[in-house]
Amino acid sequence: MMADRVYNFSAGPSVMPEEVLLEAQKNLLNYKGSGMSVMEMSHRSAMFADIFADTQEKLRKALSVPDTHEILFLQGGATLQFAAIPMNLSCGKTADYAVTGNFANKAAKEAEKYCSVHIAASTAPEHARIPRQEELSLSPDAAYFYYCANNTIYGTEWQYVPETKAPLVCDMSSDILSRPVDVSRFGLIYAGAQKNMAPAGLTVVIIDKELAGKELPYTPQVMSYKMMIEAGSMLNTPPCWCIYMLGLTLDWLLAGGGVSWMEQLKKERAKRVYDVLDNSSFYLPHAEPGSRSDMNVTFRTHSAELDAAFVKEAAARGLVNVKGHKIAGGMRASLYNAMPLEGVDALTDFMKEFETRHV
Amino acid sequence: MMADRVYNFSAGPSVMPEEVLLEAQKNLLNYKGSGMSVMEMSHRSAMFADIFADTQEKLRKALSVPDTHEILFLQGGATLQFAAIPMNLSCGKTADYAVTGNFANKAAKEAEKYCSVHIAASTAPEHARIPRQEELSLSPDAAYFYYCANNTIYGTEWQYVPETKAPLVCDMSSDILSRPVDVSRFGLIYAGAQKNMAPAGLTVVIIDKELAGKELPYTPQVMSYKMMIEAGSMLNTPPCWCIYMLGLTLDWLLAGGGVSWMEQLKKERAKRVYDVLDNSSFYLPHAEPGSRSDMNVTFRTHSAELDAAFVKEAAARGLVNVKGHKIAGGMRASLYNAMPLEGVDALTDFMKEFETRHV
Repeated sequence: MMADRVYNFSAGPSVMPEEVLLEAQKNLLNYKGSGMSVMEMSHRSAMFADIFADTQEKLRKALSVPDTHEILFLQGGATLQFAAIPMNLSCGKTADYAVTGNFANKAAKEAEKYCSVHIAASTAPEHARIPRQEELSLSPDAAYFYYCANNTIYGTEWQYVPETKAPLVCDMSSDILSRPVDVSRFGLIYAGAQKNMAPAGLTVVIIDKELAGKELPYTPQVMSYKMMIEAGSMLNTPPCWCIYMLGLTLDWLLAGGGVSWMEQLKKERAKRVYDVLDNSSFYLPHAEPGSRSDMNVTFRTHSAELDAAFVKEAAARGLVNVKGHKIAGGMRASLYNAMPLEGVDALTDFMKEFETRHV
Repeated sequence: MMADRVYNFSAGPSVMPEEVLLEAQKNLLNYKGSGMSVMEMSHRSAMFADIFADTQEKLRKALSVPDTHEILFLQGGATLQFAAIPMNLSCGKTADYAVTGNFANKAAKEAEKYCSVHIAASTAPEHARIPRQEELSLSPDAAYFYYCANNTIYGTEWQYVPETKAPLVCDMSSDILSRPVDVSRFGLIYAGAQKNMAPAGLTVVIIDKELAGKELPYTPQVMSYKMMIEAGSMLNTPPCWCIYMLGLTLDWLLAGGGVSWMEQLKKERAKRVYDVLDNSSFYLPHAEPGSRSDMNVTFRTHSAELDAAFVKEAAARGLVNVKGHKIAGGMRASLYNAMPLEGVDALTDFMKEFETRHV
């Protein structure tokens, strides 16, 4: 890490690879001899068209996206997808939702405007675990089965891909590109970019083309997957800078070894923090073993005062944004793709030292 | 202009002030000692909250936005607003649309999904002029009157604010911040950021708070002005980097003299190009005098071959993106806020020289 930078454990927007930021900085006023910044480029120019196509191709390679699936670069975040998904895929019928956290719950609530929502599983209010396959209550005629792969606030992560008759729809906002995924098993995968991919403002949607084209009549055109597929994501001006930054992130990821490399690092990062938690009676992990997230490790001490002291002292050491979400309280260390192992070690060293001083 | 940069006449995304890009570059890996890039900041962090509030405040100052109106920083571009406006403001009733170009036409077409659209004026197919006040056919009970202040493709610009009983809704994507506006006369002003404000991915909405809260029941929550007002634009993660860049642009604009300075420059830039057109029988301007845009000057020669040669030779001299939109053909010089007079002079010099060689 560069000397004047911090270790940023924010849940999102979040840490980006320094190599990526340095490359962006270098070319900020003049991209590859074009005489302009990527921020100034017409989205219809040949140079930006290349950036766009290259980024799409690199993402296809990184996630082994089959030709059956289209990659879209959209705006509006996961929250707009909460509406777009039922608008496009439900035909106003029944859809199954597994509610394992705050964002899955929000998605289910928003979907009620457009279709009949069946709660296939709920882990409320604790959300400390992921339901097992046999716990899922599947509707016989569901238009799709919706789940959120990683629950950022509670720190749980699905360790398996559910078996369902209905097409799988998955919010991978907080663990996309952190492990290999068999995309062919999914009807639709989507992710806000601001955790593992790029700055906030870009939403990636990967959709089985056969599912597009059944949108409800009042669907806004930029929310129609079919129209966006036909327009190559350029029905309107896309978030060009975010797409460019995603391309740089994918260069970094592919050069290092792709999602297998990321998975290895992800497991190693998480193990180092969970090991401290499991070898301590001072810290209380929130998520149950078997459901634990590698991306967001949630824990607390026995007292809210100590939690506050932990967050404050960590920040003073350059370990920032370890405060838990206000819904869950306690602490949360988000260990996204760009978090170096040195950052994890600095955190675990501090955790052990803090415990020694306060037990 | 820095030696290795070009003059970029793109209609959007488009040229940004060099001072703004240099400032962004300098702080790219470490914003004000935070140890992180603005791209890595949690949108809920104190530091980003400051950037957000400052940017909002600077925009309020630059456009003299009264307290009756809220400023929202959204995503999805003008095209999502084409749907959001009737979803929020029409109550499914009648809305008046002045169709003076491609984007106003698209807005009217999209609105047909949500309300009864009355075409209050149309300048199709030429779109070479703006209708006069007395030409506007206003519905007695319109929920709002919609128009597009500047027509990027055809190069026309409203030189007056229409008088209507219904609240005015105006797309200012391509001339916002280029002249003073009496915001109190408008129910809603919106603009995609990628012409005069910031990189693509941010949509600014300025809305009279009294108009919010009447959305149709199936309105997605991120498209509800009321919910976004209540959430301070942060119902979901906003496009943080674009907001930061807008702040830097506003610093530059306010330091130079605000929208009065911009208006003076805008008139001067346009005059220099229109003077060449008006003193030539070689070039044919598209827009009628009295309706001409200061932001996008559209013209052609007598032959498509010469138009193509003009575009190609201009680019070879570092005057890039002067090709007209495919709908309109010919040439288009977009003269946005960040285009220096030197760029305009380089263009007019070339125009005169090209004419000499080809008459």
